[in-house]
Amino acid sequence: MVSPGALLAAIDGVGADRRRGGFSRHVFDDAERQLREWFVEQAEARGLQVTTDRNANIWAWWGEPGDDAVVTGSHLDSVPGGGAFDGPLGVVSALSAVDLLQERGFRPRRPLAVVVFAEEEGGRFGVPCLGSRLLAGTIDADRARALRDPSGVTFAEAMSSFGADPSRVGRDEEALRRIGQFVELHVEQGRGLIDLDRPIAVASSILAHGRWRFRFSGQGNHAGATLLSDRRDPMLPAAELVVAARRAAGAVADGRATVGRLVPTPGGTNVIASTVDVWLDARSPQDAGTRSMVADLTAAAQEFAAAEGCQVDVAEESYGDTVHFDPAFRDRLSALLDDAPALATGAGHDAGVLAAEVPTAMLFVRNPTGVSHAPEEHAEDDDCTEGAHALARVLEHLAG
Amino acid sequence: MVSPGALLAAIDGVGADRRRGGFSRHVFDDAERQLREWFVEQAEARGLQVTTDRNANIWAWWGEPGDDAVVTGSHLDSVPGGGAFDGPLGVVSALSAVDLLQERGFRPRRPLAVVVFAEEEGGRFGVPCLGSRLLAGTIDADRARALRDPSGVTFAEAMSSFGADPSRVGRDEEALRRIGQFVELHVEQGRGLIDLDRPIAVASSILAHGRWRFRFSGQGNHAGATLLSDRRDPMLPAAELVVAARRAAGAVADGRATVGRLVPTPGGTNVIASTVDVWLDARSPQDAGTRSMVADLTAAAQEFAAAEGCQVDVAEESYGDTVHFDPAFRDRLSALLDDAPALATGAGHDAGVLAAEVPTAMLFVRNPTGVSHAPEEHAEDDDCTEGAHALARVLEHLAG
Repeated sequence: MVSPGALLAAIDGVGADRRRGGFSRHVFDDAERQLREWFVEQAEARGLQVTTDRNANIWAWWGEPGDDAVVTGSHLDSVPGGGAFDGPLGVVSALSAVDLLQERGFRPRRPLAVVVFAEEEGGRFGVPCLGSRLLAGTIDADRARALRDPSGVTFAEAMSSFGADPSRVGRDEEALRRIGQFVELHVEQGRGLIDLDRPIAVASSILAHGRWRFRFSGQGNHAGATLLSDRRDPMLPAAELVVAARRAAGAVADGRATVGRLVPTPGGTNVIASTVDVWLDARSPQDAGTRSMVADLTAAAQEFAAAEGCQVDVAEESYGDTVHFDPAFRDRLSALLDDAPALATGAGHDAGVLAAEVPTAMLFVRNPTGVSHAPEEHAEDDDCTEGAHALARVLEHLAG
Repeated sequence: MVSPGALLAAIDGVGADRRRGGFSRHVFDDAERQLREWFVEQAEARGLQVTTDRNANIWAWWGEPGDDAVVTGSHLDSVPGGGAFDGPLGVVSALSAVDLLQERGFRPRRPLAVVVFAEEEGGRFGVPCLGSRLLAGTIDADRARALRDPSGVTFAEAMSSFGADPSRVGRDEEALRRIGQFVELHVEQGRGLIDLDRPIAVASSILAHGRWRFRFSGQGNHAGATLLSDRRDPMLPAAELVVAARRAAGAVADGRATVGRLVPTPGGTNVIASTVDVWLDARSPQDAGTRSMVADLTAAAQEFAAAEGCQVDVAEESYGDTVHFDPAFRDRLSALLDDAPALATGAGHDAGVLAAEVPTAMLFVRNPTGVSHAPEEHAEDDDCTEGAHALARVLEHLAG
């Protein structure tokens, strides 16, 4: 077996982000294309048969593609300045698990595939799990084609210049029918396994979560020459929203609200902004909690804006209700893996999208920093190897 | 005379900013180079002799360069997404005034020059009036060379790739000696002339003003998986500083404080930022007022940061004390221009930098929107023509 650590080392330089630290690998950019090519080479070197589906997700089949397959995989894209493990660990662990099974002479009795989903982080076009949402049809194809990256390029344009046909995106019945069960291995994005002193967990649930863009509009003007009384500065209500979001999250049981992206336009030091875009990431265990947080913040944003003579428009960019992974499937895998503990997660995953379609499970590998979406994200080589062995056991069990 | 309006129309497409609206013309970028070339052509077409000084400022001489010259001019760069008049109006009005004087057969008895100062807005390298500050030696040459634009290019590198020699920047005694008096015409950046129903004013003073960068550092992390109690999110203290800045400005007589530029890193929607840079633009009539505002906000920022487990570093990027333009010179020009009213301004200008070196004055042209540093900035053609006539009268008076 080529270990997950060795496979990750092979892609360590791709998409390194000198300014932010960590990696920036976004769908169809140069780094992500390199990773796609690298994955295809690795899969083919293992005798897998590779295809890319209508939604730019890559499938590597062990044997003939067919229905009711056992599918594992994750994604290769990152958040801006993200860590090395979120996504790639699931992909390389799948390759390592294939190595292990091939070394053992395992012959799958059901079709078996490794999948790489496109734009899981939404780092370029704003909608997370775009590849799996398109596959499942939970985002409208026209809406997806019209999504724009920060420089104004549409998803359709980016897909065309990648050489794929954007007219064909959307729910893919054939691809879905082929997935019998889906298992995604992922680095843990919290401290659950540190606290439990265990290397591997299974997932129980994902928070109800989404992204909303608040666009505050005022009057751009001169920062020195404009009297305070003449200002309509959208940065004020934007800042008040940031503060209010933390308060709102604290008022909901296990609520989380974050503003990590905020863009004033035009963005000059000596210029009162004309617009400020604030992206709110809001999550809680229940749909009702998340929805009420966003409703309260929308009302608050309108008040903040009005007090400064500004307007605000709110757009929902993505939403996913609470996911409870199939309990029987989860318990079956847990039993297989030395009674691996079950952990809830606040992070969204392609597995969360697929859970509405097919029996789906996740394995988590311990992260000794507890940090994710940042360069400090980590997993020890031994834990990664343990993860690959665990995944191999699961695939053997399901496909054997 | 080619009117100021006609000259502005000739450069209307250069540096148009489709995303922000208005114009983005920054020192040594493609748009600003086009404007430099255009200015040289226009000056040479009027028989002026053009040189570029060691600090990248352009001088167009009517007759032989010499000491004790009458100098007028302004700048061609803009803030990001700025208006068409801030800067260019002073340059084109100088060309129009030269037209008028040449049509009248005027022969200057003192040297006369039109100057275009580099990087007045600090839109690329962060320090406003960089060309005039370097000329006057009020910024250290090494510090200026090391200034970086948002993509990491230094001023020295940008100057080299423009074909100029960065080792030669700094106080320029010869160029300074040549300036006998300096008069800058500028679009008004407030509502003074609207309220007075007059087209032209002279400047009385400029607020004490500067720029400070607050860098808040915390721990980048996952927006969904990180418990509120585990967060060290620098966006929180950054937002609190924005709100506090408005309050602090309101507490100082005629104080102004603005955050128009705020950059979270890495800037992902589903990512808690690791750092947030906030640029504070603070101004008030007196040095003491501006300084105490910034001191109070620095202390407040430290409290906000500490409460979130973050750090903050504060760096002064530029500062200029209150400027009182030479009262006798100002009154002389006012008398010449139908008792033009005297207006204070909150905006910084190259004239404010030069006022410490030589007798300096400014003329303001009415702005019917009162808005500046934004696409809505405006001046009517008739007022611009009136401004060119007023400037011609001033130059004739001083150089005749």
